[in-house]
Amino acid sequence: MSEMYSKILKKLEPYTPGEQLNDKKYIKLNTNENPYPPSEKVLDAIKNSADASLRLYPDPTCKDLVSVIAKKHDVSEDMVFVSNGSDELLAFAFNAFFAQKEVAFPKVTYSFYPVYCKLYDAKPTALKMNEEYGIDKDVLSKCSLPLIIANPNAPTGELLSDSYICSLLEKKEDRLIIVDEAYMDFAEQKSMAEYVNIYDNLLVVRTFSKSYSLAGLRIGYAIGSKLLIDALNTIKNCFNSYPIDRLAQIGATEAIKQQKYFDSINAAVIATRERTAVKLKELGCKVLPSKSNFLFVCFTGFDSYSIYSKFKDKGILIRQWNYIQDYVRISIGTDNDMDIFIERAKEIMLNEKSRI
Amino acid sequence: MSEMYSKILKKLEPYTPGEQLNDKKYIKLNTNENPYPPSEKVLDAIKNSADASLRLYPDPTCKDLVSVIAKKHDVSEDMVFVSNGSDELLAFAFNAFFAQKEVAFPKVTYSFYPVYCKLYDAKPTALKMNEEYGIDKDVLSKCSLPLIIANPNAPTGELLSDSYICSLLEKKEDRLIIVDEAYMDFAEQKSMAEYVNIYDNLLVVRTFSKSYSLAGLRIGYAIGSKLLIDALNTIKNCFNSYPIDRLAQIGATEAIKQQKYFDSINAAVIATRERTAVKLKELGCKVLPSKSNFLFVCFTGFDSYSIYSKFKDKGILIRQWNYIQDYVRISIGTDNDMDIFIERAKEIMLNEKSRI
Repeated sequence: MSEMYSKILKKLEPYTPGEQLNDKKYIKLNTNENPYPPSEKVLDAIKNSADASLRLYPDPTCKDLVSVIAKKHDVSEDMVFVSNGSDELLAFAFNAFFAQKEVAFPKVTYSFYPVYCKLYDAKPTALKMNEEYGIDKDVLSKCSLPLIIANPNAPTGELLSDSYICSLLEKKEDRLIIVDEAYMDFAEQKSMAEYVNIYDNLLVVRTFSKSYSLAGLRIGYAIGSKLLIDALNTIKNCFNSYPIDRLAQIGATEAIKQQKYFDSINAAVIATRERTAVKLKELGCKVLPSKSNFLFVCFTGFDSYSIYSKFKDKGILIRQWNYIQDYVRISIGTDNDMDIFIERAKEIMLNEKSRI
Repeated sequence: MSEMYSKILKKLEPYTPGEQLNDKKYIKLNTNENPYPPSEKVLDAIKNSADASLRLYPDPTCKDLVSVIAKKHDVSEDMVFVSNGSDELLAFAFNAFFAQKEVAFPKVTYSFYPVYCKLYDAKPTALKMNEEYGIDKDVLSKCSLPLIIANPNAPTGELLSDSYICSLLEKKEDRLIIVDEAYMDFAEQKSMAEYVNIYDNLLVVRTFSKSYSLAGLRIGYAIGSKLLIDALNTIKNCFNSYPIDRLAQIGATEAIKQQKYFDSINAAVIATRERTAVKLKELGCKVLPSKSNFLFVCFTGFDSYSIYSKFKDKGILIRQWNYIQDYVRISIGTDNDMDIFIERAKEIMLNEKSRI
């Protein structure tokens, strides 16, 4: 029967998202969700829009949402593109810019990038990293291929400075660099979106899933030159005229208007991250410096799968990849979540030591 | 700068959806939306779910929604696939089954099909139709290529019988036939979904946008053999782990539970369609027999663009395509909408006659 399949289908290897388990109540530190709820005003805006108008298609251009995003980043509206989560946006971007071409990214980064390469027949170059999963700037600076960089990087949390990324953009002005800023609002550094009026070869990808606490609503966006945004619109309009539903458009529009609230919850996440990192180091863990809403942690003496399993047994979900043997990723929860997490970490570390 | 574009991008010609204008209040008969609101219980379910849980990703498997759809169609859950509108589903299906292969469809049908062919490098064969945009069964029966058939067809409204489609499925058991049933709930004929346990080469595509009055929420689904559903899941998981947001999953799940309400509003649409067709014929229009929630109409003496413009001037939006010179498509509104539409049609037809 597989003669009904296309050639491309037979080659694919899907991305595996973090577990969304419902078998019991877990403290969920595995998919980088914000531990704080979205603003009440966002919820009210959605409730007030759940009315008879749902019979009508949404605005295919997401005009109101595009308008507030353009204002937030001080760019014109034709430099903004909205998508059904930033994953859809990344898929469109790989299709628009990298299909049947080359693209480079650090060897350990968002693991959806190599999946998109297969989907769109792009040839990936995995850039060698230095020890302990750091971006090797010598390697990155020498690379002249189109690039996609998660900044801060996932799952490591490493932040590249805006001036360094500008130097890469300037090196070759017809080489596209996509900067995936899913976690930038936890980095206390300005977004590369501030540079899109200078660099036509820069596309900045962002999401409402993390810093706007709206993973359940599915909205991502990109900021870039009109040339790049036009390309994304062409792909989108060949794929799905209406990817963003009415309620998501309204919720995200209101979220941008409630920036102060979100700034405050993100500041809390940052404070908890720093506190958690200190405590983990006190327990003897290796913790990479993170400018994101997660920590990349090596529980010395444990491989990644065993530490993942031990936390799961204790009701805490963390993220583990089979191709990373030593480190796991811990999303930052509330202070209370992280107090429990540190207690469980102590139990695991001490228990293991008593066994030795 | 276009060296940043992929080759595929340069070849694309996007689909143009029907206008979504806000410049004044129109009677909107151009995008086949249901004129009646979704069930109040659907709206309540959405409102009750617009809470702090929006900070969490949705269920990537849409388990609850898949479960009620499987029950509705009496199939197992692994024979159901849910998508962000049926357009996303069609895109995935073209990628999974037709990419770099051949596919045939009637010459006049949903105009997104040829767009997907370009996006996924599929070779389309447009099947010749008989006079007045009818499906030529001799041509269709002789074709042995993979097929996609909108049934009822859009924008014509023509319905093929289930027994005829079964004969096509039996002709060549390793040839895939996708039946796009976006409008089937207005057809008073059983869905091809009733046959998926018999034919492994049948994929049935459906949507909540029309008969469930939820165009604003973006949910489509497919029913088919596990082999076909697995393929769609592979594509989806290489594209976007979470395409369906939490509120859309909840709204659609509740909609299936309120089937009686939706049956009643769809019966009203069918009655209004029949009444409107009679009145248009009395005015001298040619009206194709339609089993959908729209009519395909030739206003004798007017080309499609001029009749579209005249209705727009009178505050009514209808759908027109430049490649169809004589016919336009009229979505069925409420009885009141259609009374006004018929009045405007009379004015246009009489005014033209008085000018001759």
